[in-house]
Amino acid sequence: MTARHAAALQAFADHFGKDFSTNLTTRQQHAHTQTWLTNQPADGVLLAHNKQMLIDAVKLAANYQCPIIPFGIGSSLEGHVNAPLGGVCIDLSTMNQVLEIHAEDLAVTVQPGVTREALNQTLRHTGLFFPIDPGANATLGGMTSTRASGTNAVRYGTMKDVILNLEVITATGEVIKTASRAKKSAAGYDLTRLFIGAEGTLGLISELTVKVFGRPEVVAGGVCAFPSVNAACLAVIQTIQYGIPVARIELLDELQVKACNNYSKLTMPEQPTLFVEFHGSALGVAEQADTFAEIAKEHGADTFNWSSDESQLSQLWKARHQAYFAVQSLRPDCKPCATDACVPISRLADCVAETRADIEATGLIAPIVGHVGDGNFHVSLLIDVNNPHEIEKAESFMARLSERAIKMGGTCTGEHGIGQGKQKYLSAELGENTVEVMRLIKRALDPHNIMNPGKIFSL
Amino acid sequence: MTARHAAALQAFADHFGKDFSTNLTTRQQHAHTQTWLTNQPADGVLLAHNKQMLIDAVKLAANYQCPIIPFGIGSSLEGHVNAPLGGVCIDLSTMNQVLEIHAEDLAVTVQPGVTREALNQTLRHTGLFFPIDPGANATLGGMTSTRASGTNAVRYGTMKDVILNLEVITATGEVIKTASRAKKSAAGYDLTRLFIGAEGTLGLISELTVKVFGRPEVVAGGVCAFPSVNAACLAVIQTIQYGIPVARIELLDELQVKACNNYSKLTMPEQPTLFVEFHGSALGVAEQADTFAEIAKEHGADTFNWSSDESQLSQLWKARHQAYFAVQSLRPDCKPCATDACVPISRLADCVAETRADIEATGLIAPIVGHVGDGNFHVSLLIDVNNPHEIEKAESFMARLSERAIKMGGTCTGEHGIGQGKQKYLSAELGENTVEVMRLIKRALDPHNIMNPGKIFSL
Repeated sequence: MTARHAAALQAFADHFGKDFSTNLTTRQQHAHTQTWLTNQPADGVLLAHNKQMLIDAVKLAANYQCPIIPFGIGSSLEGHVNAPLGGVCIDLSTMNQVLEIHAEDLAVTVQPGVTREALNQTLRHTGLFFPIDPGANATLGGMTSTRASGTNAVRYGTMKDVILNLEVITATGEVIKTASRAKKSAAGYDLTRLFIGAEGTLGLISELTVKVFGRPEVVAGGVCAFPSVNAACLAVIQTIQYGIPVARIELLDELQVKACNNYSKLTMPEQPTLFVEFHGSALGVAEQADTFAEIAKEHGADTFNWSSDESQLSQLWKARHQAYFAVQSLRPDCKPCATDACVPISRLADCVAETRADIEATGLIAPIVGHVGDGNFHVSLLIDVNNPHEIEKAESFMARLSERAIKMGGTCTGEHGIGQGKQKYLSAELGENTVEVMRLIKRALDPHNIMNPGKIFSL
Repeated sequence: MTARHAAALQAFADHFGKDFSTNLTTRQQHAHTQTWLTNQPADGVLLAHNKQMLIDAVKLAANYQCPIIPFGIGSSLEGHVNAPLGGVCIDLSTMNQVLEIHAEDLAVTVQPGVTREALNQTLRHTGLFFPIDPGANATLGGMTSTRASGTNAVRYGTMKDVILNLEVITATGEVIKTASRAKKSAAGYDLTRLFIGAEGTLGLISELTVKVFGRPEVVAGGVCAFPSVNAACLAVIQTIQYGIPVARIELLDELQVKACNNYSKLTMPEQPTLFVEFHGSALGVAEQADTFAEIAKEHGADTFNWSSDESQLSQLWKARHQAYFAVQSLRPDCKPCATDACVPISRLADCVAETRADIEATGLIAPIVGHVGDGNFHVSLLIDVNNPHEIEKAESFMARLSERAIKMGGTCTGEHGIGQGKQKYLSAELGENTVEVMRLIKRALDPHNIMNPGKIFSL
């Protein structure tokens, strides 16, 4: 630790007292815990309770040129909460107030530590809901910073689409508002979208206003088994091309279905399977479901049985949501390392097929599950993180996956972000000139590189 | 003109020959022609035919630190194509090729000079269409740069929502790609959204990939007269809150209806009127139209007659599209000066009512017409641009309109942009700290201030 960082830590301790901790366990719990990336703890952890504490923290950090690393709930997957250059982790989890509900405008203003489940719990009596569901019960601040999406994105968009405005603390401790509450605006640069997905490298989000939606009159859904992954993907492609406004369309490959059957005590046919959900009026969902059933049949699927019975649906989605734990049960001594890619929908079947073949050839255990309506899918690699040989295998597999997606006109990450793990693919995807423009922006907004340094790109 | 600019002009003339013109009429035609803002022509106009010419032009401009001002078709409303610091106008209108149609991915790659009507003409045999319709037959490059939207935005979003990626020439002449063709991505800063709405101040758009949509199975629509503007607005608010996926919902106030009747030889009741359109299946549009009819009735409207007959619909929308000329006919010696504001939907009725009262009190002739489903409306001021007293009246009215919208949580511009005309309201809306962050980005990406200088903010 440099003398400057040591002085910064002392200053944080003096200023924040018991809310600031340098306990090793606390620090490790606040660093990356989710895959094989090394845990790189910050030098201290500040539990922030209010906006003024955030402003004070950034100003102290700026004074001492000491890094700060924002932390929501720690569910990010690419090392976003690691502290490769040390510094102070800012834990926002207790800034979890829903501040304003503008029901008539379908908008809600929240603190960054509110989780998506807590927000929906607060909204339960209003007839409104917040749709973005990345699986984990992440915080809205974290989801904003990684441009998260998930199962409902095919219908409701990603975080980039549902945020009306942000309040951000800049690297010098100024508080800025990025936009008004109007649904659309042509007033200057789109700073809202610039901070969304910036992974905390440009400023600290202190408040956000998100769009919410009226609960659909009817929710209906079902599962549908296909003879092959290819057939399932072709059905997805056609569903999207037909413009059926599916709310969710999720692929589980054969191995994933097997894992879910074992873990959730189900009896699904062990074949590639689509989980589908429709939102709308009674007539509307019936029409959607019938059209989907026809498409599925064309691609060799069994009968598509759907229902709008709430308990049947919730059992169905429980299995989907337990997919992570189900995967883990395939090799209980290992943690699933999740990676993602996203391609134009026309290339989905090819990309999944080539990836499946690659997995087989490599000898990895790795189910595929995906938000396929967006061309986005995940591979959950079951590797022993203490075995360098397995890590190497996984890393070279991920490099090939990224390269494959990029070659097909897609991206190395649809929703997990770049963080530490995918920096090497960013230039391959967009070119070094593009990354250089990102660096220019970073240097302009954070000249001392104190905002979550070491993420997205090296400076 | 400085010696440096003179040298730049000589260099442009030498390099581009007959494609470069310094003819005064040409220069004036390429500067702001649309309202009372002064026409400030560039020193020369380059007719660009291909990407290499754009790169060469930017490199020359960078060499001589000479401003460049991109020009599509000249339909912008806030002085975006003026050249307050001189320099070279780059006319992109002949870069009008549709480069790639990825029908299966619902995406199209075009040159920036393609107009929205030309794009739809090219797509007519594919079953696809491009929905963004700001009224004018603008170019896609221009629409991108002002973050345009228009009548269909309530259903299909604005330019920010439909652009997958941009190719941009930076201020140093480097070509960058902002994103892949994947529908979603979490790969680094959202440069796509940064350049959308940047009004050409950060780089020159040389290519863009936009989302297109399947033509709806059925298009249906109708008009509906209300007893007051307030009643019409309340019906709009409820329609949006009910989640009816209207494709268009446009308000024409009494004066606008009167103008349309006169100009288009129609016999609409001279009352505040909503023009509504629904897209979907036969069942879907019927359900939407019936629900809307109930809402309208609750708010005192006459029977809502709707139809899916193409010729009836096209006659209906012809009147809406001729609204600009109809307004002009109210005072033939004047040009309508259009301004816009956008508020959260719950404040729409209040904002329109207060604005209407303000117009009456000021004694201006100014119909109101709006994309009210987004809380966005326009006021078309009929003033004599040669009368300083009328200009002053119009300017102070617009200041009050901006202030009113901002106070209601809205924005001083929903879709026209800041340009030269609305700079004074930007700080009022977002605060000086926010504008300062925009300036930091501008200086980082365009250190010599050559990219469309004098727009959005002063440096």
